[in-house]
Amino acid sequence: MKCKVCRGPAVIDLPRHNANFCADHFLRYCRNQVERVIHDYAMLTPGERVLVAVSGGKDSLALWDLLGELGWETDGLYVGLGIGDYSDVSGGYARRFAAERGLRLNEVDLRATYDFDIPTAAAVTRRVPCSACGLSKRHLFDAAAVDGGYDAMATGHNLDDEAAVLYGNVLRWQMAYLGRQRPVLPAGNGFPRKVKPLVRLTERETAAYCVLRGIDYQVEECPMAAGNRHLGYKEVLNEMERRSPGTKSSFYFGFVDRAVDLFAQEAWSGPSGGVGFDDGAADDGGASGRPLGHCTRCGAPAESDLCAFCRLVDRAGGAQPVPVAPPRRRS
Amino acid sequence: MKCKVCRGPAVIDLPRHNANFCADHFLRYCRNQVERVIHDYAMLTPGERVLVAVSGGKDSLALWDLLGELGWETDGLYVGLGIGDYSDVSGGYARRFAAERGLRLNEVDLRATYDFDIPTAAAVTRRVPCSACGLSKRHLFDAAAVDGGYDAMATGHNLDDEAAVLYGNVLRWQMAYLGRQRPVLPAGNGFPRKVKPLVRLTERETAAYCVLRGIDYQVEECPMAAGNRHLGYKEVLNEMERRSPGTKSSFYFGFVDRAVDLFAQEAWSGPSGGVGFDDGAADDGGASGRPLGHCTRCGAPAESDLCAFCRLVDRAGGAQPVPVAPPRRRS
Repeated sequence: MKCKVCRGPAVIDLPRHNANFCADHFLRYCRNQVERVIHDYAMLTPGERVLVAVSGGKDSLALWDLLGELGWETDGLYVGLGIGDYSDVSGGYARRFAAERGLRLNEVDLRATYDFDIPTAAAVTRRVPCSACGLSKRHLFDAAAVDGGYDAMATGHNLDDEAAVLYGNVLRWQMAYLGRQRPVLPAGNGFPRKVKPLVRLTERETAAYCVLRGIDYQVEECPMAAGNRHLGYKEVLNEMERRSPGTKSSFYFGFVDRAVDLFAQEAWSGPSGGVGFDDGAADDGGASGRPLGHCTRCGAPAESDLCAFCRLVDRAGGAQPVPVAPPRRRS
Repeated sequence: MKCKVCRGPAVIDLPRHNANFCADHFLRYCRNQVERVIHDYAMLTPGERVLVAVSGGKDSLALWDLLGELGWETDGLYVGLGIGDYSDVSGGYARRFAAERGLRLNEVDLRATYDFDIPTAAAVTRRVPCSACGLSKRHLFDAAAVDGGYDAMATGHNLDDEAAVLYGNVLRWQMAYLGRQRPVLPAGNGFPRKVKPLVRLTERETAAYCVLRGIDYQVEECPMAAGNRHLGYKEVLNEMERRSPGTKSSFYFGFVDRAVDLFAQEAWSGPSGGVGFDDGAADDGGASGRPLGHCTRCGAPAESDLCAFCRLVDRAGGAQPVPVAPPRRRS
């Protein structure tokens, strides 16, 4: 197996590109993919400051590293979700990455600041944990980006994430979510601009990027996400990709490049915030284009007196912590 | 297992409806589903004459039977495709069904009338056989419906067929095909109205309907369709349906009821005719809304001097027949 560029020994094969790469040219490929997507979808313009949503996993750390390599001025934000050991370990990876590179990592801890955590919120709201988690992260990332005067907020959603969310939204024809599922959401209505620079890279590629760059990351899967529909959709897409390389990419970019505009008008009529079928961990939110009021408590964009996050704090804040199952290895 | 209606012994379970039925109430369920879809999508109005596309398989014979049961005046049309024993046996089932019920079955034989057959056309055009087959059937059914003065042409596409075609079109975001994938296509531009009254029934249900009604049908799968993408998509959808009953129905009807209109404008820019990703056996065609000329040879709607079917006749007509693999049992 030889590198497509230099014919040296290859370390990774990319069937959908019909290419193999050595370490150096794979890293260059990753940078090129991110540079290309930032340009093609007008995500960022030179000189802008970017807040990176950092979880301590491979995607967010690869994203932070890649944006730095490409010359962007970035800070990170880590949200402590209180998911037992999983969160403790994840935070450690995020802090170590930042410290080793002299980068600034801001932190918000749900329990310390709002007196609840995700397992407790899930128990109190009786919804899937990914719902309260996605809501909380969107709120805190949005607020930090706006308050910190960042030009954009970047998340590590990769091609697998986006294709799986699209798959779930298409299976149910979730019109409002479909109208907002773009690689870049413009700022507006009190929301920051949101960008997803990793949408041309798969999770296998972000993992390989981290390994080759010597980035240590949280390998465990979130114990609260086990068995959710999102993971099932990823399995289906992986099997189709195996049979026909390029399926995920043509599915996602076919939608983004040809179909999403058709759904744009539908985005007005849906709930603001999430773009995913289950409001889950891999989803993201943004300006819906809909005129909104402001939360009377925190000032965030809101459809009623209190924003959804402040309502969650009212329900879950101060509740007795519930135990979390131990994390399981990614299979 | 008891019938949901009469509590007698049930013969079939329908997980997506959370219901079991005895033979009588299952047959009534099938009639109700067809009656409902004809009404909801304004497929037919009382007194109209319908031409049924008959292949000799379970779907087309169930369709013909159901339309008769519901009081519609119907004739059938069978197209002899020349696919070896498979075609001979299929034609026999169609003729026997018609003869036993005193129904009129018109026939067109590709080899006798146009001096080619599907295996030969596939070899000459070097495309998947389903392409030449779909093209030929659409042309001959359309022409027969228009020439015979029928108010509509009905095909036996079931929920599995339509969901799989939609799945393939969505994976590639085939905008023009998506804009035409409806349960009813209005007449226009020289095309007859086309209706799909079985879209609320699965292929398991049309098979059960035939068994319970004592209808003999061609059980073999077309030997030329083996391994096509359409069958792979059906497998994926079947697995998702197994995990989450109702998936196919909400996928297909969510699209038809909420999304297809968004794609309508795109239907203008695509090729007329097929609505499917591979122009295949389970696809259908119709008026695209696009102004068309007429074929200088046969008078059919055409985008150039000769329609696609007459061009196929020019390429494949008179060619030496090629052998066909023996049919395989449906697994």
